[in-house]
Amino acid sequence: MIIKPRYSKFDTAWRILVILTVLVQATLLPLDFLFELRFQRWYDMLDLVITVIYLLDFGENMHRYKRIQKHAVYKDIYWDTYSSGKFFISDVLAILPYAFLFSHPAFQFLRMFKWVKVLRTMHFFQIRNIRNTTRSSLWFLLIGTFLVAHWFSCIWLRIHGFEADISHLDNYIKALYYIVTTLTSVGYGDIVPNGNAEMLFNILLQLTGVGLIAFLVGSVVGLFTKRNPAEQRFTENMEKLRALIHYHDIPSELEKRISDYFTYEWKQKLGYDESELMESLPFGLKNDLQLEFKNRTIKHISIFEGVDEKFVREIALYLTPIVLTPGDYLFRTGDVANSMFFVKKGKISVLTEDEKQELTILKSGDFMGEIALFKKSNRTATVKSIGYSDIYELHKKEFEKVIKKYPDIALRIKEKSISREQRYI
Amino acid sequence: MIIKPRYSKFDTAWRILVILTVLVQATLLPLDFLFELRFQRWYDMLDLVITVIYLLDFGENMHRYKRIQKHAVYKDIYWDTYSSGKFFISDVLAILPYAFLFSHPAFQFLRMFKWVKVLRTMHFFQIRNIRNTTRSSLWFLLIGTFLVAHWFSCIWLRIHGFEADISHLDNYIKALYYIVTTLTSVGYGDIVPNGNAEMLFNILLQLTGVGLIAFLVGSVVGLFTKRNPAEQRFTENMEKLRALIHYHDIPSELEKRISDYFTYEWKQKLGYDESELMESLPFGLKNDLQLEFKNRTIKHISIFEGVDEKFVREIALYLTPIVLTPGDYLFRTGDVANSMFFVKKGKISVLTEDEKQELTILKSGDFMGEIALFKKSNRTATVKSIGYSDIYELHKKEFEKVIKKYPDIALRIKEKSISREQRYI
Amino acid sequence: MIIKPRYSKFDTAWRILVILTVLVQATLLPLDFLFELRFQRWYDMLDLVITVIYLLDFGENMHRYKRIQKHAVYKDIYWDTYSSGKFFISDVLAILPYAFLFSHPAFQFLRMFKWVKVLRTMHFFQIRNIRNTTRSSLWFLLIGTFLVAHWFSCIWLRIHGFEADISHLDNYIKALYYIVTTLTSVGYGDIVPNGNAEMLFNILLQLTGVGLIAFLVGSVVGLFTKRNPAEQRFTENMEKLRALIHYHDIPSELEKRISDYFTYEWKQKLGYDESELMESLPFGLKNDLQLEFKNRTIKHISIFEGVDEKFVREIALYLTPIVLTPGDYLFRTGDVANSMFFVKKGKISVLTEDEKQELTILKSGDFMGEIALFKKSNRTATVKSIGYSDIYELHKKEFEKVIKKYPDIALRIKEKSISREQRYI
Amino acid sequence: MIIKPRYSKFDTAWRILVILTVLVQATLLPLDFLFELRFQRWYDMLDLVITVIYLLDFGENMHRYKRIQKHAVYKDIYWDTYSSGKFFISDVLAILPYAFLFSHPAFQFLRMFKWVKVLRTMHFFQIRNIRNTTRSSLWFLLIGTFLVAHWFSCIWLRIHGFEADISHLDNYIKALYYIVTTLTSVGYGDIVPNGNAEMLFNILLQLTGVGLIAFLVGSVVGLFTKRNPAEQRFTENMEKLRALIHYHDIPSELEKRISDYFTYEWKQKLGYDESELMESLPFGLKNDLQLEFKNRTIKHISIFEGVDEKFVREIALYLTPIVLTPGDYLFRTGDVANSMFFVKKGKISVLTEDEKQELTILKSGDFMGEIALFKKSNRTATVKSIGYSDIYELHKKEFEKVIKKYPDIALRIKEKSISREQRYI
Repeated sequence: MIIKPRYSKFDTAWRILVILTVLVQATLLPLDFLFELRFQRWYDMLDLVITVIYLLDFGENMHRYKRIQKHAVYKDIYWDTYSSGKFFISDVLAILPYAFLFSHPAFQFLRMFKWVKVLRTMHFFQIRNIRNTTRSSLWFLLIGTFLVAHWFSCIWLRIHGFEADISHLDNYIKALYYIVTTLTSVGYGDIVPNGNAEMLFNILLQLTGVGLIAFLVGSVVGLFTKRNPAEQRFTENMEKLRALIHYHDIPSELEKRISDYFTYEWKQKLGYDESELMESLPFGLKNDLQLEFKNRTIKHISIFEGVDEKFVREIALYLTPIVLTPGDYLFRTGDVANSMFFVKKGKISVLTEDEKQELTILKSGDFMGEIALFKKSNRTATVKSIGYSDIYELHKKEFEKVIKKYPDIALRIKEKSISREQRYI
Repeated sequence: MIIKPRYSKFDTAWRILVILTVLVQATLLPLDFLFELRFQRWYDMLDLVITVIYLLDFGENMHRYKRIQKHAVYKDIYWDTYSSGKFFISDVLAILPYAFLFSHPAFQFLRMFKWVKVLRTMHFFQIRNIRNTTRSSLWFLLIGTFLVAHWFSCIWLRIHGFEADISHLDNYIKALYYIVTTLTSVGYGDIVPNGNAEMLFNILLQLTGVGLIAFLVGSVVGLFTKRNPAEQRFTENMEKLRALIHYHDIPSELEKRISDYFTYEWKQKLGYDESELMESLPFGLKNDLQLEFKNRTIKHISIFEGVDEKFVREIALYLTPIVLTPGDYLFRTGDVANSMFFVKKGKISVLTEDEKQELTILKSGDFMGEIALFKKSNRTATVKSIGYSDIYELHKKEFEKVIKKYPDIALRIKEKSISREQRYI
Repeated sequence: MIIKPRYSKFDTAWRILVILTVLVQATLLPLDFLFELRFQRWYDMLDLVITVIYLLDFGENMHRYKRIQKHAVYKDIYWDTYSSGKFFISDVLAILPYAFLFSHPAFQFLRMFKWVKVLRTMHFFQIRNIRNTTRSSLWFLLIGTFLVAHWFSCIWLRIHGFEADISHLDNYIKALYYIVTTLTSVGYGDIVPNGNAEMLFNILLQLTGVGLIAFLVGSVVGLFTKRNPAEQRFTENMEKLRALIHYHDIPSELEKRISDYFTYEWKQKLGYDESELMESLPFGLKNDLQLEFKNRTIKHISIFEGVDEKFVREIALYLTPIVLTPGDYLFRTGDVANSMFFVKKGKISVLTEDEKQELTILKSGDFMGEIALFKKSNRTATVKSIGYSDIYELHKKEFEKVIKKYPDIALRIKEKSISREQRYI
Repeated sequence: MIIKPRYSKFDTAWRILVILTVLVQATLLPLDFLFELRFQRWYDMLDLVITVIYLLDFGENMHRYKRIQKHAVYKDIYWDTYSSGKFFISDVLAILPYAFLFSHPAFQFLRMFKWVKVLRTMHFFQIRNIRNTTRSSLWFLLIGTFLVAHWFSCIWLRIHGFEADISHLDNYIKALYYIVTTLTSVGYGDIVPNGNAEMLFNILLQLTGVGLIAFLVGSVVGLFTKRNPAEQRFTENMEKLRALIHYHDIPSELEKRISDYFTYEWKQKLGYDESELMESLPFGLKNDLQLEFKNRTIKHISIFEGVDEKFVREIALYLTPIVLTPGDYLFRTGDVANSMFFVKKGKISVLTEDEKQELTILKSGDFMGEIALFKKSNRTATVKSIGYSDIYELHKKEFEKVIKKYPDIALRIKEKSISREQRYI
């Protein structure tokens, strides 16, 4: 029995709650030192609530750890557990309700041990939630900047002291304004440090500011250079096209067709070939994925109706994909026929030899040329793509390889395909 | 019938007009709030004009959307339409002439909905107009910076109030000066915020400034690292050459020849092999592109004059390109001859065996060695490239494959090539 | 006899001592100029100690140089020696105890020649200590920034003069505060330069500040873009998966399996295929490395016990690795058997044909299907991976190739494998 | 006859003179506007000198252009000529001695047209002088920054006016100090703009400052990310090794051997395989380069002495390179011999079968195993590399292919190789 410790919605919600709890605590902690909040009732209540939340979180983690330890399968993947002792210890240290236990406020800082766990969880979120990596990075940056500014403001107020003629809030806003002015390296100079302590604090503050800016710029540059790989492929293709035009002076009509194709590819496939992903997968997964793609196209094809699932799976492995751009010919009247085609996507026009009459239009799920699989013949129609089309081709040779093992199925398919009206093959 | 909704010049002009309209509106909006422009006649007139422009734009978009919806071929490419409801709604909301309809100025902000459409159009321009991506990015950045500074200036004037002893314009310039000083993080400190509101505004302003700078640096870094791929290839090649020289100490004359070749390649082909682009194209386009290149060379060749188009197209597929650097030999007297050559570009010197006498010089469109296609023979001259030359080679084997299907053409070409003076083959 | 001049722990400690000595000297030097430390006894003593340390270091380097020169093998690798004359000269110049020899303080600066050697050593550390490159870069940056700020502060005090009413320390802190304020481009403006000298000094200071910030940002950006290659591969794979989902709408269960596999690959192999490294190695090393991996698996396998080492080494070369994801089949009952398997890592379940009964579980070091190597047969069980497993496969063909040369071993293995209970093969 | 318009030393010196002239002019121009230098004799003289230099440069360029136009070979490479009209016009406009011709100073600005040519030349230098690209970029940046600060300072003095109580020089330094303070975004605030004109000037100045910083950061980041490709390869290899160690726990001795090999490869070959460069070259150059490498090794080999050059060239093409790490075996006593070896670099120890006695040491230029080319035999010694060695291998098969065409040479080589003492083969 295989266990999949995937995160449920409840689980995600719980983790976010824990993160928020830690943030609230980190915000209140320096305020406690400034305004002695710990002597107020609501702060004590909050501390109790936080203790309970931490306790529950610890229990949940222990439970998860044991469960994973036992079933072992995914142990390597879900690594944010107590597998190494230090997380265990830091979590236990964070639980204790220091506000109750000790009178000295310094103990409160020990609660910050919970950060260890939270940072780990945030990192884990960021990695698994690959779709919104950028957005979550931005959130972490914003929260981090706020906390840094907030802590520095409180420390500044501690060193500099409060101005008596304005309220506490005014004092705090003034401090925050001073801190941000310095961190962003604006430095108006209307508030300046006096004395060695303030100056040394200021030096630290300014260096932190430069570090933060460098970090911010680094993140932004990361976003700018680490472009979406599909867009990157599109841009590269367009660059190649540009180089070609520069050197060869090809007709603008052909240029347009090529540029349209690249745009189509980008928008439709996000510029990725399936095969690229396939290569990085082990055999088992690769096989399942291929079948998944092709089964969907084959299943709805009338001549394969009621046929053994196993046969269809085997056939699927031999389908090769073809892309047609608008106006491309799939084949022309008179060509030797040695494969059949399945339309996966798009519209295909079947025409008479002189292309003056449209016999029919094939759409997603349609197929053509099945006669080619059973007897030597030539195409009796001209087939042309209207827009962009995705086609699967099945070669006679491969079909014969599979059909050998299923002689009864061969017969049934042959009958069906003959009974079908066969204006074009 | 295939529809190509490519943008005409008129279309582009119209889109630029819409963008300008939105920019004008975005510039006037905060001024309206400061100076109550909406009670002035010219502002009302302008508002009306904008309404009409938005209305026309909406109509044009609806029309385009329906046309694309119907013909379906390029639907996937021209995606800046009303395919998703939200663009429809935001566009309709932006049309309403709020200045007329409502007395409260807040409604004016609703017009900003047009931004949604404009940003989309700008993004679209940026992508399709791949040649000037960098330049357009810069324009967007400049316009964006101006609008941000302008809006902040107006908000600052609103919070801070006007100084009575100087004119409105002076007030505005002073505000703009203050805003820019802060956004660029210069922060002279001659103008500083007073009171909580101004300080909080200032904190926001400074953070925006840092963000803008990070964004600017990110863009610039992007430009620096995302170099032109052709230049990149050139630089890489030169680096490789440098490594080689370091290790092997090759003669400086050979070093120069190699470095010249890389420069030639860069300047002429922008460092791209045609084949690289070919690989990313589907079969149909690839084929058309190849024919395009080679047809031009073959068409003007006298022995193929008057020959069936179909034959020439088939031959073209078998031509393989060769690059000769200055002084390279194509062949020497006495070598076994089993291919003919077409000069695509450059100058080729035909020499006697001892290379003392120059028999002739071949130029773009000339060909040589056609006898090799019809009978076993040895080269009767030495052929050497003067500068850089692009040559196409046609092998006997491939020629015979094609010519089999066209026996009458074979005869004609043979005759022609024999009648031609054949000093060298 | 091959000499390996690898750095011992003592050697590393010594080098760190030398670096620290240089840093202490660089810190004291400008202070000496300000406060005339050279007339104090402790400074003279320190100078003497430094001279001794430099002397010892010089001796050690000379010794190492001669030793390497003689044995020549690794000469090319350990390049931080006196191979080029300039390091010799700069080192000798740095030894002289200038404080004793000359009365003029300017000579003291000559000691800074030791920097040449130290920078070289630091660079060497950074390169060889590839595991902590980032951390050591950070340390260099911090130390460099401190030294720059310290030197500028001392120069500023020299130009600006001391304020008489505050202590020397206060003066120094104030200068440092001013320098940092300018270098970080905060520029409060409470201390400003007066007169041409101070202004020119200031211009230099500001340009240095911008340079330092650019350098810092450059380093941080480098860290952001130069991500761990394993993480990069993981991210790229996830991006490809995302593109696939966008285009193909595959079932979420398959999506999860693939995303789990990539996470497993990242965490377990750091996203690297062994083969990638193998390719960059010359034949000898490649061979040794391969044997190293596989020997460990084979050595503990019972049927190879007591067998000639040479035989095992040869067999090892033919083992091909397979990765199984949870639930993947290795083979099913009835499949044709033509290879045996060795479990390297993971848990493999051996089941009856209907998969209802679990016959046994194979673990790291177990093997199966050895009968397939000696006679034609079909699999008599179904084998499935429980979690992720790493397997080695040995094909009959390759086995026969090796065994031919060792007929006696062949016999022994065959006997052993028959005597073993053979419920499944 | 092929012309090589390569830059001689004189040519380079001349170009640098022209660049310097332009820089001097750009520095003096704004000073002229401030201090009316044009009414001083020395300025007029200088103007005359500049005119003469520009005239000479124009002549030289015309001459070069015509020469290149005529010989055509390298036309595409040396593109900094008058091929397009605009450079011709801008150059002519720059020659005119405006100081003499017109009284109004504005005409002086027209001389700045020379910049067009200078920027082009600088760009050309930067590209061709690939070895010092980074250094030259830095120089351009420094010069550019100085010019921008200088021009802004002069404009500021023009707008702000001179302070009467201090000298002109003091005024200039103060202006420069103010400009740099703003451009670096330090902004002390001791000098602030007054009035609209100064404020608008200031806004422009600040934006320029941010742009310059972004540009500087971009350049630095470019340097950080665009690492030397050889170092990059080394780092990547080390990263792979690290991943391997993490997963496989290989013995530290093997780890050291691999890490040493990568260091060797980096230091010796700069991490480049010759083959990588070869691939980007056309056939002719590729061939010449290969011969160049190998000829040097073969030429000094005694058995090939006096042999036809043509034969040696052909043999050279068949030599395949091998790298041996310290302790690697080339072959052991008893191995079948079917190739001979040439030592290119390093030291090879020839040992008895039990490796107890060293028969000889082979060095660069030595060869061994030549008997293997003429008769079936087994190795009679064990050969092992002492340090790192580069060897060329010549297989019997390839040798026989070449020797067929030169029967007389075959005989001579055979005789020589037999007459040679043949203790080991």
